[in-house]
Amino acid sequence: MINYPNKIKQETKKTPTKLNISSNRGMLLENIINISNDYYLNNNIAVIYKKPTPLKILKTTKESHYQVIEKAIFLAPSTTDYNGIYKGKYLDFDAKETNSTTSFPLGNVHINQIVHLQRIAEHGGFAFLIIFFKAYNEIYLVDQSLIQEQIKKGIKSIPYLLIKQTCPLIEQGFLIQADYLKAVDKKYFNLH
Amino acid sequence: MINYPNKIKQETKKTPTKLNISSNRGMLLENIINISNDYYLNNNIAVIYKKPTPLKILKTTKESHYQVIEKAIFLAPSTTDYNGIYKGKYLDFDAKETNSTTSFPLGNVHINQIVHLQRIAEHGGFAFLIIFFKAYNEIYLVDQSLIQEQIKKGIKSIPYLLIKQTCPLIEQGFLIQADYLKAVDKKYFNLH
Repeated sequence: MINYPNKIKQETKKTPTKLNISSNRGMLLENIINISNDYYLNNNIAVIYKKPTPLKILKTTKESHYQVIEKAIFLAPSTTDYNGIYKGKYLDFDAKETNSTTSFPLGNVHINQIVHLQRIAEHGGFAFLIIFFKAYNEIYLVDQSLIQEQIKKGIKSIPYLLIKQTCPLIEQGFLIQADYLKAVDKKYFNLH
Repeated sequence: MINYPNKIKQETKKTPTKLNISSNRGMLLENIINISNDYYLNNNIAVIYKKPTPLKILKTTKESHYQVIEKAIFLAPSTTDYNGIYKGKYLDFDAKETNSTTSFPLGNVHINQIVHLQRIAEHGGFAFLIIFFKAYNEIYLVDQSLIQEQIKKGIKSIPYLLIKQTCPLIEQGFLIQADYLKAVDKKYFNLH
C-alpha cells in the first residue's frame, strides 16, 4: 500500500469558529442521507459524498512512527457538507433539521453556505438544502433560489407552507429511507 | 452567528489507515493549486475546493463550553482531494508530485482514488490527476483514462514521455502559478 505524506501542514487557512455544545441536531437526517449515498454509489446511480468535517489541527505527536493529532478544533464550514455528480450534473447541498412547525429558520444555515450555494447555481450546478421538518416527519428539497428570495425580502426564515406548496417532498423509498434523487429528478430534470 | 451542532458523532465509518512519517511530499503543488482555486473563486471562474483532511475523532473534551478534539487519527482517502464546478461541469482531481525523471509511479495514488476517478468519468465528470514532475519543473493534467490504460496493461506507472506527448502541460499564468483550468479547456472543451 501507499505511504501517505505527512498531512499535518495541510491545515486550511480558515479562521476557527468555536462551536457551542448543543444537541445532536442534524444527526438523524445526516445518517439517512449517508445511507442513501451509499446506496446510490453501490448501484451506480450517482457519486455523492459527505465531506470530512473541517478541523484545524493544533498539535500532533508521533505514536510508533505514525502521526496522531493531540489537539484540534472545529472550523466554520466554507462550503456545504455534500457534493457530487448525478446524470452528469454537479450537485451541492446541505442537510438541515428543524423542530419548528411554522418555518425553517435561515439562522440554521451559515452565511458561507448561503453564498456557496448561490455561486454553485450561477455556475450551472444544482444547489439546494434538504430540510427535515421533524414535527411533520417530512423532508423537502429546497432550491437555493428560495433562500435568496427570502433574504431579498428581508425575511430570515422560509415558511413551512411555502416549502410544502413549492418544493418537492422527498419520499421514502422501498430500498432507501430518503430517495432524494427522485426529488432532484422532479425539480431539475422535470421527471415525474 | 449560528450555533453549530455538536459534530463529534459525525465521524465517518472509514477504517483508519496509519500514516507513515515522510517528507511533505505534495505540499508545494497543493499550495499552488489552493492559490489557483482562490483566484478562480474570487474571479468567478470556477468553484473548486480542497476537501478537509479525513480524520477519525477518538476523544473530545470541553474547554469553556466548546468542544475540542483531544485525539484523532488520519484516515485513508475514499475520494480525491479536490472537486468542484467549472463551466457547468463537475471536476474531480488529485494533485501529485514526483521526483522521478522517467515515470509517475501509480503507487502514489490510493486505490480508492483510482476507483473514484473512474466512477466520476463514467458519470460524465472530468476526472484527472495534476502531476508535478519536479525534476523538469513541469506540471501536467493527466486524464484518469491513462491510469486505467496502464493498469490494464499491468504497468504500475505512467512513463514521463507518454505524459509529455499526450497530456496538456499546465502553463504558468501571469496571475496564478498554475492555471490548470486552461489545461482543462484544452483537454475537455477542445479550446486552444
